[in-house]
Amino acid sequence: MNLKYAVIGVGGLGGYYGGRLAKNAKDVHFLFHSDYEIVKEKGLKVDSVKGNFYLPKVNAYKNISDIGKVDVVLICLKTTNNYLLKEMLPPLLHERTLILLMQNGLGNEEKVSSDFPQIPVAGALAYTCSSKIGPGHISHTDLGSVTIAPYVNCQTEVLEQVVQDFVESDVDATISQNLLEIRWRKLIWNIPFNGMSVVLNTTTNNLVNNSSSEKLCYDLMLEVIHAANACGVYPPLSEHLSDEMMELTRNMEPYAPSMKLDYDFNRQMEIEYLYTHPLQEALKHGCHMKKTEMLEEQLKFLSSGIKNKQ
Amino acid sequence: MNLKYAVIGVGGLGGYYGGRLAKNAKDVHFLFHSDYEIVKEKGLKVDSVKGNFYLPKVNAYKNISDIGKVDVVLICLKTTNNYLLKEMLPPLLHERTLILLMQNGLGNEEKVSSDFPQIPVAGALAYTCSSKIGPGHISHTDLGSVTIAPYVNCQTEVLEQVVQDFVESDVDATISQNLLEIRWRKLIWNIPFNGMSVVLNTTTNNLVNNSSSEKLCYDLMLEVIHAANACGVYPPLSEHLSDEMMELTRNMEPYAPSMKLDYDFNRQMEIEYLYTHPLQEALKHGCHMKKTEMLEEQLKFLSSGIKNKQ
Repeated sequence: MNLKYAVIGVGGLGGYYGGRLAKNAKDVHFLFHSDYEIVKEKGLKVDSVKGNFYLPKVNAYKNISDIGKVDVVLICLKTTNNYLLKEMLPPLLHERTLILLMQNGLGNEEKVSSDFPQIPVAGALAYTCSSKIGPGHISHTDLGSVTIAPYVNCQTEVLEQVVQDFVESDVDATISQNLLEIRWRKLIWNIPFNGMSVVLNTTTNNLVNNSSSEKLCYDLMLEVIHAANACGVYPPLSEHLSDEMMELTRNMEPYAPSMKLDYDFNRQMEIEYLYTHPLQEALKHGCHMKKTEMLEEQLKFLSSGIKNKQ
Repeated sequence: MNLKYAVIGVGGLGGYYGGRLAKNAKDVHFLFHSDYEIVKEKGLKVDSVKGNFYLPKVNAYKNISDIGKVDVVLICLKTTNNYLLKEMLPPLLHERTLILLMQNGLGNEEKVSSDFPQIPVAGALAYTCSSKIGPGHISHTDLGSVTIAPYVNCQTEVLEQVVQDFVESDVDATISQNLLEIRWRKLIWNIPFNGMSVVLNTTTNNLVNNSSSEKLCYDLMLEVIHAANACGVYPPLSEHLSDEMMELTRNMEPYAPSMKLDYDFNRQMEIEYLYTHPLQEALKHGCHMKKTEMLEEQLKFLSSGIKNKQ
């Protein structure tokens, strides 16, 4: 099955994964915003720890309606822009188009699915250290796997084809049948390291190498694990995942998570999907994530000074 | 009774209260560190919201042993320097010398009293917005009252004379018989506003005018109130004190608390007495102050970058 892909949001994530698919001659169509002219002229450049590559010509678009119908939409936007999807996506969708949300956080699929109730929706969790370091220029410094899980209306063969396309494109991709589990599992990392790098103005290496912040990161990770289990993740997440995440982070190159880059560049932070939704879900299930709540409150304070609302 | 005073630590607190006593012709002797030469030459200047004053000549010392014995030692050092007191104070002490700890935090009197078991020790909580803005130059922008309570070995008539001396010197001073209560009561303000102004790099007015940080300050204040009551403060502190503190702060001029100034000027922060001791006391009494603990952990992370260990 030859799938036609659209990549919406070509930052560190969309540029890296879309770039891998395009490098492997898959039928990939990128929607650009401010970088359109430069990419149209100069192509897409990916500096990757797995080997740099350069795509002199990519299918680049400025208007989403020029892409035409596609089989898979990779949503790589920041969740702060998810409110735009209802207006944006219709030109891309046929009856069986899969909307694949490659985003962090909780509640992403629920929102999109409420906008497009008939359409297949799935979630994908990317474990990668990648970021856009210039127009049409992506840096991928560590990791790179992706886990995909169906949410609603999904066809197994399409999901399997997406995974196969990724694997053929040198991306370690797998399918899970437990979207709730993979979303919460990713939050174990995102909740401490995104927010703390902003509030303490630092990078992952410093957070794990100081005994006070290391303990706090552990506390936050355990809150996420307990909240996940309270919310019905089954089989329950083990507390040992906090050690695994810590070990993973210790072995990573020093990294400024996406939220830190957003804050530093005066862009909106993904507080709602990464913090507010998990806090609300946990509370609904009788679990009060106090330190996570404090981090959310601190981030909201800091975000009030951000000028660029995109 | 004419009391001879020594003021140890002439920053925003020692300069303001010692200055008021000296202005009123009390027998006050100031120990200076780096500001000695300038004060010896140019005197002490206090810009006060209650009226500026200037003392062209004060009893200034560089060596503590030149002061001689005194009746009252006002300890206005930062608590990070309390470990010095055991070595410093003996030249000042006769049998009845009152050591009055004008400091924030918890456990201050216990420590000093263990160093000098026979000596009278009392605590004083100052509600004032004052800071040193230059050598021998103090700025007092708001409030100014002080509450004094005996800890051990105290003579009532000496405490009463100290209060009278303050009152005559235009300081609103009172005696309390409940040191534990006044220390915890002051922490209701100090714990949220000192630490949060450092971690969020801001001033009190911004903390109370943003709904997220305002809520977090409330949460922290309520943790302190519950901890105080768990630790046996009697009569128990009312939750309404959090509203009073918030109202007080709302009506204050925008203020950078002492911990914020310490951090900005790369000086050690008073984390131990303001955060660690209260957290430990509360834990001993079965109360886990989770958000306060998180603030302590964040401050400890930030303090690890501080160069100047004084």
